[in-house]
Amino acid sequence: MGLLATLLIFGVSLSLASAERPMRRSLVFPMETDNSYVELVPQKDLDMGAFTLCMRVATELAEGNREIILFAYRTLYHDELNVWREADGRYGLFMSGDGVLFHLPELNTFQTHLCLTWDSKLGMAAFHVDGKRSIRKVYKPGHKVQKGGKVILGQDPDSFLKDFQSKQSFIGEITDVNMWDYVLSDAMIEALHVGKRMPRGNVFDWETIELIVNGNVKVITEEL
Amino acid sequence: MGLLATLLIFGVSLSLASAERPMRRSLVFPMETDNSYVELVPQKDLDMGAFTLCMRVATELAEGNREIILFAYRTLYHDELNVWREADGRYGLFMSGDGVLFHLPELNTFQTHLCLTWDSKLGMAAFHVDGKRSIRKVYKPGHKVQKGGKVILGQDPDSFLKDFQSKQSFIGEITDVNMWDYVLSDAMIEALHVGKRMPRGNVFDWETIELIVNGNVKVITEEL
Amino acid sequence: MGLLATLLIFGVSLSLASAERPMRRSLVFPMETDNSYVELVPQKDLDMGAFTLCMRVATELAEGNREIILFAYRTLYHDELNVWREADGRYGLFMSGDGVLFHLPELNTFQTHLCLTWDSKLGMAAFHVDGKRSIRKVYKPGHKVQKGGKVILGQDPDSFLKDFQSKQSFIGEITDVNMWDYVLSDAMIEALHVGKRMPRGNVFDWETIELIVNGNVKVITEEL
Repeated sequence: MGLLATLLIFGVSLSLASAERPMRRSLVFPMETDNSYVELVPQKDLDMGAFTLCMRVATELAEGNREIILFAYRTLYHDELNVWREADGRYGLFMSGDGVLFHLPELNTFQTHLCLTWDSKLGMAAFHVDGKRSIRKVYKPGHKVQKGGKVILGQDPDSFLKDFQSKQSFIGEITDVNMWDYVLSDAMIEALHVGKRMPRGNVFDWETIELIVNGNVKVITEEL
Repeated sequence: MGLLATLLIFGVSLSLASAERPMRRSLVFPMETDNSYVELVPQKDLDMGAFTLCMRVATELAEGNREIILFAYRTLYHDELNVWREADGRYGLFMSGDGVLFHLPELNTFQTHLCLTWDSKLGMAAFHVDGKRSIRKVYKPGHKVQKGGKVILGQDPDSFLKDFQSKQSFIGEITDVNMWDYVLSDAMIEALHVGKRMPRGNVFDWETIELIVNGNVKVITEEL
Repeated sequence: MGLLATLLIFGVSLSLASAERPMRRSLVFPMETDNSYVELVPQKDLDMGAFTLCMRVATELAEGNREIILFAYRTLYHDELNVWREADGRYGLFMSGDGVLFHLPELNTFQTHLCLTWDSKLGMAAFHVDGKRSIRKVYKPGHKVQKGGKVILGQDPDSFLKDFQSKQSFIGEITDVNMWDYVLSDAMIEALHVGKRMPRGNVFDWETIELIVNGNVKVITEEL
């Protein structure tokens, strides 16, 4: 009877799983523009002494020597939290001023799972590429990310949500953008990389996030 | 009843596992200095006719043409046992004089599991990179490592624990440094690479080692 | 009682496993010489219209632009069956005259499982690198390998077992050299690559082969 109960439980969970076949939205930025972008509406203010930001990103731009904007959170007067691929091939986090730069494998036409963590206490910043953590670098201990701005993908706003430059725009595909206001462990990020969908982002949760599309960006829904 | 016994055993081992969630210290060397280093206090004298030295190391310095000190054991007048990444990209073991050099994959921003074995009898030296052994090279058969010195990470002492040069210093992250006074088999080193924590180092055991930190080195404790 | 039986079975199989712990000889060629080589004594004449030759080989020489001899079978007047890494980085089979050349991944300091097959009927030749087959090339259909010579590792004899050139010598490590007088299937070679030890070579069987060492070559026995 104990065995029968076990089988029944398995049976139920399997059928639930197939009923819930997960779908996911993916953003396709097909060409270089100075007006196409997607605004992400957060669940809470970006008022943060720590964060984890993850996304799955694919682009062929990294073959060239061009800046590529990967994530921009801008308040009225400041670039609060920008993630760039620099013209020299390094990857950088910039919070209101000078950034911290990392030597990572280049993004390419296949999907890369890219995460970035930072904590105000020790100022430790690190990237995670397909589940593997970079070295940690000390960056702005004691700093805080300020609320009151807007997050966009696809363009870098040189002023508050305008003054875009096409030579910095993103071309390619971005999906599964999630953000937490704390630092996830290496093991949790590795689990996200291979498809686990917990913990859900508490700043941005891609499964439920509201997206505001501007210009030429396609929103595709795909089965996982 | 057999099934019940099995479940109980599983239950016990699972709860033990979560109670023992392993933690590990990691050393972050954030910048180039001529005064930041960590001294490792050994469990026994480094009076050795053979050894295995392992560490997990991540650095972005190997992108450049710069010497990088990885391990230094110095007595009053001699560099008894130094491990270098040379300016030409080769990796070397130096014991009181000329070294033996190997062509290995470059270190990078992700963690590499690096081991080095040497035995006095035949003088066989080899590196192991992420569990894979390099060719063996004959180096100083009959030699012995002498006791009475100090082991440091982060700097190369040109005299006894001073005269550091910033252009040889280590920047990046080092953890899981263990040393044995005998040669581990290829299979044991492969097992260490994938996370097995036996056999424990009998010269240095990273889980219990005493560390003396000097200058700008951060000691992070992380979940495994 | 069921549990006890299980434990007993485990106990038995574990002790069998440790009793049978396989060992293997490995040849270390530590330096460039014109006199160090190992002669392999075959089980039968090399009188062959087809063959498979496998070895595990590690060398750092492939970083340079130098010929490297990998296998030499010479009769009195002919290089009957030589395997080379050419100065231009290609890998070649030479049977009494011009050879057939392949673009393969470079050998390196870690062990590569290298096999070579050839059959007289269609003249099909192919390399297998770590279990993956190269393209097939047509080479000397109708030809036969002649008996009456000697097989050596480490040097290329320009005449019968003499006239060695140090700039062609092998430096590094060779083990698990086996030869069959027929062509093994791709699947069999893949199985050998991952450690299966069947079928045993019927021309050379590394587990029982007689080795005649000349000059500075170390024979190491290692646990598998």
